[in-house]
Amino acid sequence: MEDIITLDYGSGGMKTSRLIERYILGSFGNTVLNQLGDGAVLGELAFSTDSFVVDPLFFPGGDIGKLAVCGTVNDLAMCGAEPQYLSCAMIIEEGLPFETLERVLRSMGSAAEAAGVQIVTGDTKVVEKGRGDGLYLNTAGIGTVRHPLPGLKAVVPGDAVLVSGTVGDHGTAVMLARSGMMEGEILSDCCPLNRLTERILSSGAAVRILRDPTRGGVATTLNEFTERQPFGIELTEECVPIRPGVRAACEMLGLDPLYCANEGKLLAVCAPEDAEGLLEIMGPEAAQIGTVTENAPGRVVMRTGLGGRRILQKLAGAQLPRIC
Amino acid sequence: MEDIITLDYGSGGMKTSRLIERYILGSFGNTVLNQLGDGAVLGELAFSTDSFVVDPLFFPGGDIGKLAVCGTVNDLAMCGAEPQYLSCAMIIEEGLPFETLERVLRSMGSAAEAAGVQIVTGDTKVVEKGRGDGLYLNTAGIGTVRHPLPGLKAVVPGDAVLVSGTVGDHGTAVMLARSGMMEGEILSDCCPLNRLTERILSSGAAVRILRDPTRGGVATTLNEFTERQPFGIELTEECVPIRPGVRAACEMLGLDPLYCANEGKLLAVCAPEDAEGLLEIMGPEAAQIGTVTENAPGRVVMRTGLGGRRILQKLAGAQLPRIC
Repeated sequence: MEDIITLDYGSGGMKTSRLIERYILGSFGNTVLNQLGDGAVLGELAFSTDSFVVDPLFFPGGDIGKLAVCGTVNDLAMCGAEPQYLSCAMIIEEGLPFETLERVLRSMGSAAEAAGVQIVTGDTKVVEKGRGDGLYLNTAGIGTVRHPLPGLKAVVPGDAVLVSGTVGDHGTAVMLARSGMMEGEILSDCCPLNRLTERILSSGAAVRILRDPTRGGVATTLNEFTERQPFGIELTEECVPIRPGVRAACEMLGLDPLYCANEGKLLAVCAPEDAEGLLEIMGPEAAQIGTVTENAPGRVVMRTGLGGRRILQKLAGAQLPRIC
Repeated sequence: MEDIITLDYGSGGMKTSRLIERYILGSFGNTVLNQLGDGAVLGELAFSTDSFVVDPLFFPGGDIGKLAVCGTVNDLAMCGAEPQYLSCAMIIEEGLPFETLERVLRSMGSAAEAAGVQIVTGDTKVVEKGRGDGLYLNTAGIGTVRHPLPGLKAVVPGDAVLVSGTVGDHGTAVMLARSGMMEGEILSDCCPLNRLTERILSSGAAVRILRDPTRGGVATTLNEFTERQPFGIELTEECVPIRPGVRAACEMLGLDPLYCANEGKLLAVCAPEDAEGLLEIMGPEAAQIGTVTENAPGRVVMRTGLGGRRILQKLAGAQLPRIC
């Protein structure tokens, strides 16, 4: 391990996990935190937080404000909770135009309204020029757990792995915006998922776990599912829904859509007999992308179009720094 | 109003208030947020957040980690709540030594233990060198409201204004640490106040409102009490407890202790007949520093040692940037 923190440690991949396990759980771990869910489930209450450092602040399909609302709303939704209240804390770099701040705040207001949540508390800090980057946001959120999810311990071989729509849109949109190439052709999928999770979880389907594949993408989130578990996940490459434009942009940028952040998609593991019904609820772009297997426990293996197999690991470096 | 945000807007004083009222409430105000309390009271639940950008990260009597735990614990305590769960989100600047991170995290762990709260969820982001300043933290917290407080609407002329101990210690300690002068002679008062508020509020005393005078200090917090209210507050200068070392350091640094942040003190407004009992609970350094009056509604007026009077306004500029 290095002596200093590098950008890789913020990628949401392998190094982020190591930092969390060694330093954070080592300093104040407890039975709730150690579960490392999208949020903490505390009886009937769910509680989650995220800081947002996305660069640029505005990108096709969204901005840091919309992202900050949707990110925390979605973390709560993945816990089976109805998101209710958010906080908003800002770290503003000296020199930020008021006009920019106002655009972001209005966007937060609209996103909160769309998700049906209220922003009820907050904080404002200003740092000197050169000690920030325009604007960093933090949101925390609380919600009521309406549908407790059994989680990884309920996952069994044969279960279906579903994704609610196309993969890699957010990460690609932000990277294109940053590069100045093809700007506006790909939109971030940034949106609140709580209405969708409510429909999924009130359907009665046997859903084991939900998670939104943000930083590190689908490949990293699936690895979080299999890590230290007695099962593996087998993914079928050709079943993963990817927009042609995203595929092309990723090729150009040297990215893999399976490792690109999503901000409006979820992964679900469910009983195989419920897969079809859930895909119908999720909509026309949803797909079953894989199956839980007894083979290769702890691993995610992708069957490629040519009949080969490759192991998908967690994101190893900083493929996409400051993507959310 | 300027076009761009300057450091003054983060001082917790007049400009912070203007930013909040115009931009934040203008974008997503609601009945809870509009109250602008230390935290939001949502029935039996209290919810609060703060980001921490203190410079330097370590100072006599504390560090950013201890501050981040105590700050949010205290905001919840001021709502009459028992703080229970915290989140911890970090924005790390590339290049931060792991050793520094570990010291801060261990300090958070100790502070959480001292306050009797658990850190149950979190987030880690890393930004490029020159886009942060070592480490910024955010904590949000939730607690159960044990003793609902009536708030400003219950304040009446004749009520006593109490402070739980000496004033200005935190701000002075940080400014001295930053200047490199007299280092270590003044300690920050950073500490959790939830045990104290529990004793105060279970005493049966008629407490109207509690607030911890952090950024902007005692003078700014008292102005938040009187703003747009039909009463004023008269302060007696010689009753305000200030350590001689803090007074000397403030003179040297050109600061006013009444505007210096505190991180382990509270202000209480209570019925006059309960003042003595509460001072006993608060301990030997507590003092009644003022009285609620019908005179000068909306204002805080200080009677000086020489028999003069001066109006104390909210902090106008950035007396102490990045103090918490």
